[in-house]
Amino acid sequence: MRKVLVIGIGAGNPEHMTVQAISGLNRADVLFIPDKGAKKNDLAELRRQICDRFVTNPKSRRVEFDVPVRAEPTSSYRSTVDDWHEAIAAIYEALIRDELPEDGCGAFLIWGDPSLYDSALRILERVRLRANVEFELDVMPGITAVQALAASHKMALNRIGDSFLVTTGRRLTEEGMPDNAGSTVVMLDGKCAFNTLSDKDLIIHWGAYLGTPDEIIISGRLGDVGAEIEKIREDARRSKGWIMDTYLLRKPGD
Amino acid sequence: MRKVLVIGIGAGNPEHMTVQAISGLNRADVLFIPDKGAKKNDLAELRRQICDRFVTNPKSRRVEFDVPVRAEPTSSYRSTVDDWHEAIAAIYEALIRDELPEDGCGAFLIWGDPSLYDSALRILERVRLRANVEFELDVMPGITAVQALAASHKMALNRIGDSFLVTTGRRLTEEGMPDNAGSTVVMLDGKCAFNTLSDKDLIIHWGAYLGTPDEIIISGRLGDVGAEIEKIREDARRSKGWIMDTYLLRKPGD
Ligand SMILES: C[S@@+](CC[C@H](N)C(=O)[O-])C[C@H]1O[C@@H](n2cnc3c(N)ncnc32)[C@H](O)[C@@H]1O
Ligand SMILES: C[S@@+](CC[C@H](N)C(=O)[O-])C[C@H]1O[C@@H](n2cnc3c(N)ncnc32)[C@H](O)[C@@H]1O
Repeated sequence: MRKVLVIGIGAGNPEHMTVQAISGLNRADVLFIPDKGAKKNDLAELRRQICDRFVTNPKSRRVEFDVPVRAEPTSSYRSTVDDWHEAIAAIYEALIRDELPEDGCGAFLIWGDPSLYDSALRILERVRLRANVEFELDVMPGITAVQALAASHKMALNRIGDSFLVTTGRRLTEEGMPDNAGSTVVMLDGKCAFNTLSDKDLIIHWGAYLGTPDEIIISGRLGDVGAEIEKIREDARRSKGWIMDTYLLRKPGD
Repeated sequence: MRKVLVIGIGAGNPEHMTVQAISGLNRADVLFIPDKGAKKNDLAELRRQICDRFVTNPKSRRVEFDVPVRAEPTSSYRSTVDDWHEAIAAIYEALIRDELPEDGCGAFLIWGDPSLYDSALRILERVRLRANVEFELDVMPGITAVQALAASHKMALNRIGDSFLVTTGRRLTEEGMPDNAGSTVVMLDGKCAFNTLSDKDLIIHWGAYLGTPDEIIISGRLGDVGAEIEKIREDARRSKGWIMDTYLLRKPGD
């Protein structure tokens, strides 16, 4: 039976690759590498670097593929995602069926950890349900952007005995700070949602391009650093053409 | 100046060590290894195995130390923790001052990731505030039990575009399922807090000894598998003398 590995490769620092991920890369006959288009070419570049550095299996082959762009959300966010995932499932299915021999092993390289705001596992589940190609699945965790953020700020994600929420910029804007979580980690925020919050005494620990040579980190009281982060973020985004940032918010104290 | 590395070593699978953590181990002159007492000797054993396997620096020395047991929480949980941390800070301070030369490098090996329900970073902050010894701090992330859980269940932690809460067994019992988080991850639960929940239609993805050869995983509807998990957990805890488990809960659907 075909084998598919879903391998977390860390969120920007190649040194965050695990021993398991490295041997996974080398077990695979084919490495599937998405190229999410020109804007984020640095990411595709990092995937290639990781392969160049860690792949020692001479039989391994790389197959780059294009991920269709998601349609602009119109009426329903969920159904746009649904169509998009179905289109990607067709691509994954073709890759697995056409690029792998019947007993072959293919690997998808996933940014950060496959379990965190990534759709590869859900899409592979769709491929399984389409039932046109059979495969066995194995998942290997990777260091996430959240962990890179915490490490760079030398901080814990939770206060002692307390909980934390991991959420998106969209939800933070719609729902505000949750009152049942001691800390809130925000990802997928294209619009500095933290600046929509009314409590300016919150502490923010922010990071962009975490783990890469371009890493920027800033912390402080939201009222003091919120505008500065927005400006630095916009300047960086313009000059590099893309940005990825993650941050943690919590009430002051301790 | 002395250098202190706080290195995440993964939560049970030595293959989860990162390239960065391995070079951190080898940069250190001294590896500080806690022995949390007889019951969890398997954990101390795993730390030793990781050192045996990955440390190639012939000059590196291991220093094992005892962590004082936390007093039973009496009046205030916070002040018990406070006393306990201050006692550990005194130990860390002595280790850094007495075991490291002035330009030496020492490493603390942290289970999973140092940012997740671990007090080493907070305790080292106390050591800095005590101001008896100066040191530079560097933090290296590690794969957490939460990621090991997700990888073994081949699942994402979040539903599409949704948030998730990471919390403790104690809080789950006191606060119930949060209604603002699509999924809830529970750690530090000695008492199967999931069985105190009234909604038996919740889906649970549970795992114990994740990443180790003894790993057990179970998923299903809480009403169907809740009692079974409790029994299997208790049997395993008795026969090994200790257990560590983590689980994810979410409403059915999708
Ligand atoms: C689609 S999610 C993928 C997350 C990934 N699976 C992980 O484990 O980190 C992309 C989001 O992750 C965060 N992110 C990923 N890499 C990052 C980096 N190097 N620096 C800052 N944020 C990053 C940003 O919030 C970004 O919007
Ligand atoms: C003090 S916390 C430390 C967490 C650790 N820093 C991490 O990143 O996973 C200990 C809790 O982590 C979880 N845990 C740690 N290792 C585990 C394992 N191998 N299997 C299941 N749960 C584990 C359990 O919930 C346990 O109560």
